[in-house]
Amino acid sequence: MGIALVSMSILSLAAAIVSKGEHTTLTISVIMSILAGLCTFTTLPKLKDTFIKANLSGRDLLKPTKPLLPETLGLPTAIIYLITLFLFIPFPFINWFEGAHVVHEQDPHLGTFPYNKLGEILSAILAIQSMILLGFADDVLDVRWRYKVWFPAIAGIPLMIFYYTNKGVTYVVMPIQLRPYLGDLVDLGPLYYVYMAMLIIFCTHSINILAGINGIEAGQSLVIGLSVIANDLLYIFNNPDRSSVEAHLFSLYFIIPFVGVTSALLWHNWFPATLFVGDTYCYFAGMTLAVVGILGHFSKTLLLFFIPQIFNFLYSCPQLFRLVECPRHRMPRIDPDTGLLKCSTVRPSDKKPMGTLGNMALKLLRALGLLKVFQYDNDGRIIECNNLTLLNLVLAYFGPMSERNTTVAILIIQTIASLLAFFIRYKLVHLVY
Amino acid sequence: MGIALVSMSILSLAAAIVSKGEHTTLTISVIMSILAGLCTFTTLPKLKDTFIKANLSGRDLLKPTKPLLPETLGLPTAIIYLITLFLFIPFPFINWFEGAHVVHEQDPHLGTFPYNKLGEILSAILAIQSMILLGFADDVLDVRWRYKVWFPAIAGIPLMIFYYTNKGVTYVVMPIQLRPYLGDLVDLGPLYYVYMAMLIIFCTHSINILAGINGIEAGQSLVIGLSVIANDLLYIFNNPDRSSVEAHLFSLYFIIPFVGVTSALLWHNWFPATLFVGDTYCYFAGMTLAVVGILGHFSKTLLLFFIPQIFNFLYSCPQLFRLVECPRHRMPRIDPDTGLLKCSTVRPSDKKPMGTLGNMALKLLRALGLLKVFQYDNDGRIIECNNLTLLNLVLAYFGPMSERNTTVAILIIQTIASLLAFFIRYKLVHLVY
Repeated sequence: MGIALVSMSILSLAAAIVSKGEHTTLTISVIMSILAGLCTFTTLPKLKDTFIKANLSGRDLLKPTKPLLPETLGLPTAIIYLITLFLFIPFPFINWFEGAHVVHEQDPHLGTFPYNKLGEILSAILAIQSMILLGFADDVLDVRWRYKVWFPAIAGIPLMIFYYTNKGVTYVVMPIQLRPYLGDLVDLGPLYYVYMAMLIIFCTHSINILAGINGIEAGQSLVIGLSVIANDLLYIFNNPDRSSVEAHLFSLYFIIPFVGVTSALLWHNWFPATLFVGDTYCYFAGMTLAVVGILGHFSKTLLLFFIPQIFNFLYSCPQLFRLVECPRHRMPRIDPDTGLLKCSTVRPSDKKPMGTLGNMALKLLRALGLLKVFQYDNDGRIIECNNLTLLNLVLAYFGPMSERNTTVAILIIQTIASLLAFFIRYKLVHLVY
Repeated sequence: MGIALVSMSILSLAAAIVSKGEHTTLTISVIMSILAGLCTFTTLPKLKDTFIKANLSGRDLLKPTKPLLPETLGLPTAIIYLITLFLFIPFPFINWFEGAHVVHEQDPHLGTFPYNKLGEILSAILAIQSMILLGFADDVLDVRWRYKVWFPAIAGIPLMIFYYTNKGVTYVVMPIQLRPYLGDLVDLGPLYYVYMAMLIIFCTHSINILAGINGIEAGQSLVIGLSVIANDLLYIFNNPDRSSVEAHLFSLYFIIPFVGVTSALLWHNWFPATLFVGDTYCYFAGMTLAVVGILGHFSKTLLLFFIPQIFNFLYSCPQLFRLVECPRHRMPRIDPDTGLLKCSTVRPSDKKPMGTLGNMALKLLRALGLLKVFQYDNDGRIIECNNLTLLNLVLAYFGPMSERNTTVAILIIQTIASLLAFFIRYKLVHLVY
């Protein structure tokens, strides 16, 4: 790890000296990200024993032998990401540094240094690091939901302050169809910050909710990360708007190393996994994705990339809000004979009779084809159905499947969602804006 | 905890609305710090079971019954500190916020907002939070020394970037006696950043080295913290230099809540302790103190406050660098009959004969009166002497003492060091500058 970090610094410095400009900065970012990925790849296996010894471990319940795997390996992954960012921070500002002493003499106020940009980067790192800390605390201590659900919003305060001071744009452009009634622009004012806080909370927790089988947390994050890179690059090339290009560049500086370390983590977490990523990784990934969306000013496009997570959350709501009985674990089940996964089920009226709202929710889902019922009683009431998660829904329709194929199926859904997002963002958008 | 945080926000907002200016900001900081302290005070006892259940616990070996105490309670302390800072960040900038929209219309470049100050604050929080994360990882995973010794310097990178861009002062004023040879000012250039990095590394680890008995980690941090407050206030009152006042104000904004949460932690960690603070607290405290020294531009005065820690480090060096045999634990011993502490000892030539350098070091220390020898061999060579830590030295001369009195003795030494520091800084300094 030490060698990788040193070579990271030397290579990047070399690249910086050879030439200047943002293409070089982007190249340095790519080089550092590759090194961060390699560093993660080689470091994680060495840390397994340390984590198991520290009681950070869990059984892989979806394997016939239920092996004990180290948990929370998202922590070193996230720390390598942070170190990479810390070492990278000076590079986007390197041109200014070299002229610094000249400017000192000419202009004592140093008005030329983009403090707002540097501060924005720091506020973003701060938000990400806060969630890594909370994630790790959660892995070790099992923080209660009523506390941890709000933490991402607190972690996002510095980011929102910077958003406020840097641009303060709180209006949204109205769809053409609504303009006669509401005008071209509607200023959301403080509500815009509530929207951003909700976005941060949602993204941070959503990766953690669509979880439970090998490779799924890192896999979905990787697909979203690559989609963000594609979106940023589409903006950067041939864009005459300087400030927009800059926003997307800074978004790239955060997401490229994320893709680097995530790829390495996914390699080790892929079926059959040799380690678990932990809540630490889920929070880290969710906050990083939220941050790049806000830094790059494309939070609506980002939400389109999160379609599977949004669906999973909405689909889970009847159980999350206890309209329908919610077992402690809703993970898929393994069939011990075939080794294949099948959906886990719930018997909504077993412990206490289900309420009217729960009944309506299940009937609606069934009507939409989003519920597989395994048993009815004589009056046609639902006795047993699949648990309300995207994973179980996929398994209810396409299962039994191997764990690997289940992950692949989810990642295909995630990729289709990204393609749909690009279609909506770049084609369909002309119908409403 | 939730209620405390909400009331913290409401009270502070109320105070902010009533009047404006930096005195108000300081008042808000004091109010928030008191609430943070109360929040820490009430939260810590509630978390004990959670921490013990998570295997974050250890035996208090200096008690006859060796009770099991929860460890790492510095983590919630540090998190409450961070939340307090996050909620506080907007207040020093509140005057600007109110004028924000006016400025927007007049000046699209937003040149008036002190981004450099806000960025500096964020870089400081980032450094502190990095060390909290590392400290917690160390408590859970036992990170190796060769890695963790360098981490504070990496955590300090953003802070040093801001130092560079904000002022970039890298010269030191020479003492009068040296000026004929070296000039009035000597520009250390890049060496100045090496100095800052070393300062950060030293402060972060030094609290962790002077540790091991109830109340000592939080106690010494509290004394240094109060000294920093006194020093800041001395600068602020009747100082015509605006930028110096501002630097010390920002230093206060960081140290006052630190004193708040530390007092609460010390209450629970005071003899007989009901919880341990953990490496998390030691790193958090060390980095916070380093950061306020750098933010307030008084790193040399800060080092004077660290005289006991510097002495402890230098005194430990012969054992740390293995010139003299170093047992795994150098904590004082308890006399089971009296319940009093006495110094722990080392037999430097038992396992392998001590080298020449080690022999010279021990002889020098004995000549200086800084070593108590318990046994000589027939040739007058040292067979057994006290372990080389400040704690053992105090016990060697003044012990046996109760654990409580040992802590009090160290805190008295710490207080004398602070008084000496003020004397050197404000009186003796005129002889050399």
